[in-house]
Amino acid sequence: MNVVPPALSRLIADLNRLPGIGTKTATRLALHILRRPASEAQSLARDLGELHRSIRLCSGCFAFAETDPCGICKDSERDGGLVCVVEESADLMAIEKTGAFKGKYHILHGVLSPMDGIGPEEIKADALLERIRNQQVREVLIATSSTVPGEATAAYLIKRLQEEAAVKVTRLACGIPMGMDIKYADELTLSRAIESRKDTCS
Amino acid sequence: MNVVPPALSRLIADLNRLPGIGTKTATRLALHILRRPASEAQSLARDLGELHRSIRLCSGCFAFAETDPCGICKDSERDGGLVCVVEESADLMAIEKTGAFKGKYHILHGVLSPMDGIGPEEIKADALLERIRNQQVREVLIATSSTVPGEATAAYLIKRLQEEAAVKVTRLACGIPMGMDIKYADELTLSRAIESRKDTCS
Repeated sequence: MNVVPPALSRLIADLNRLPGIGTKTATRLALHILRRPASEAQSLARDLGELHRSIRLCSGCFAFAETDPCGICKDSERDGGLVCVVEESADLMAIEKTGAFKGKYHILHGVLSPMDGIGPEEIKADALLERIRNQQVREVLIATSSTVPGEATAAYLIKRLQEEAAVKVTRLACGIPMGMDIKYADELTLSRAIESRKDTCS
Repeated sequence: MNVVPPALSRLIADLNRLPGIGTKTATRLALHILRRPASEAQSLARDLGELHRSIRLCSGCFAFAETDPCGICKDSERDGGLVCVVEESADLMAIEKTGAFKGKYHILHGVLSPMDGIGPEEIKADALLERIRNQQVREVLIATSSTVPGEATAAYLIKRLQEEAAVKVTRLACGIPMGMDIKYADELTLSRAIESRKDTCS
């Protein structure tokens, strides 16, 4: 006998579609929402409904924003000559949180993945090159992940940038994470850290 | 500089309020929803909005249901003389999934917790006793969790049922979980399993 009321089942199915939310978690969340006042569910529903209406892609950097151009592209204090290329919005947020980057961004919204039909067109590679050529960009910092697809995307972009634009291309440094015990670092990270070792200034 | 658009921030804050969803997970989920078609967000919003409108508490057993009485209370095939007392709806769902229980339920929607202001009134203890007296219930199976508050709630209910109603009161068996290697069982479970050892029938 099915003891889950249909309205609850539907919400569980919706939540179950979110990444990392299995049936058990979806059920727990839905029951939590049901136990809380209806106003909280309404507030979540309203914010969900408004999400796509309020947010668009910035035509400069393709970041999610409520204005076009976005706050960063508009900001004359930021260095337009330095463009950081990231896979997705969450990467931009992580970099902004450091406060260590004062340039502008280009969001790929993905990585090259021919198996999934994601080619250069999908990651806005042409738009990046056009922007580099037109806006007097002096340095492109490729900040894709150090995963196989991230590295492949970086390699593709580096090749095109070197061939088609007169621009300095840099990559985030690879090495031991801060606060990590050397003996727990994986071999690849450790060998990369050794290869990229730096002179100490006395 | 805040790079998260307000509409996205609001959704992240809503999701962050759900149990077990921290800021990072909330951000990941909100960005996922934003990347997917608007129709999916609308569908989730609609189902959230309908949740509290469609679902009420069954006046018999206090289960979440779209009808009152609920499907289980209405079902004449089920044994009304056997009532299983559970902490919450998720417990009812778990027991129903086993198919091993053919009686009816009483959902406490909580456990006794004087510190949080949850007393007998909040867990519908009087309603349970009234039902036991009026509906010729022959056995009450207390299926609260084997946690400290679960055991305290069970002890309270057992005492009241024995004093105020002529009914057999049972408790779920405690012991080694099926498929578990004895050497990995915790001491308390193992000692409980030894105390409650059963005769084997040859």
